[in-house]
Amino acid sequence: MERSIGRLVSILYRKNQVYLNMVLKPLNITASEIPILMCLFRHDGSSQEALSSYISIDKASTARAVQALLEKGYIVKEKDSADKRANKIFLTKYAFDNENIIQNLLDDWTEFLTQGMDEKSVNIMFEILENMVEKIDETDFKERWRNK
Amino acid sequence: MERSIGRLVSILYRKNQVYLNMVLKPLNITASEIPILMCLFRHDGSSQEALSSYISIDKASTARAVQALLEKGYIVKEKDSADKRANKIFLTKYAFDNENIIQNLLDDWTEFLTQGMDEKSVNIMFEILENMVEKIDETDFKERWRNK
Repeated sequence: MERSIGRLVSILYRKNQVYLNMVLKPLNITASEIPILMCLFRHDGSSQEALSSYISIDKASTARAVQALLEKGYIVKEKDSADKRANKIFLTKYAFDNENIIQNLLDDWTEFLTQGMDEKSVNIMFEILENMVEKIDETDFKERWRNK
Repeated sequence: MERSIGRLVSILYRKNQVYLNMVLKPLNITASEIPILMCLFRHDGSSQEALSSYISIDKASTARAVQALLEKGYIVKEKDSADKRANKIFLTKYAFDNENIIQNLLDDWTEFLTQGMDEKSVNIMFEILENMVEKIDETDFKERWRNK
């Protein structure tokens, strides 16, 4: 079997989910709600469609996470004044009150994984991961794999 | 915002899911069924509990993926002769007939992501990803984060 980035990334992803579900429990947040929440911390007032697109999560999963965060008091939905059919999603004061705690728990994961690595290796790792994300963003999958 | 391995890995993971769902469609397999399938290609005859544990996926998601693969004819369940309450899961001939195609599609993703990288960087990347997976495997999360 060849070495597979997909396999390693998938293991790292699932272990991160396990970690997040554990440490976020006292905040009543699950790992699957984190991308939405973190996206709103950067772009408060996004539409549900924009959130789904930013974080590459399908509309059904986005809707479930949004609904859960609504019920837990982390976000509110408001009608878009320009487009009455659309909603904008805003963080509540409760969400902002917990922003630092959440951010620290996410940072802990990076700190744990890079512990013992020298600074140069850490920089190389981030550069490689960032380059891969960039490469994917620049690729039209359908175009690339259409004739395979 | 600090650089976050969790965020980058999560983006890479979700993009890989999008890619897999696209290229696996002709085989009637979804991205969420791949870890089970690939685990069985290495350990045919595993129990459902063992699969869930190997791939760090919760029991409910494992059960859903197993059920889907059963219905699609990729696997069969057999009673364990030693423990009548347990099932062992085996790949069908149909699954083995498609093994190479599936493996090639997974390898394509690694090839795509590493295209243009020199061999040294590819090796460093794998070493770093593998070290992170190893570090996680050696860590008792509950012990580590209990007093945080």
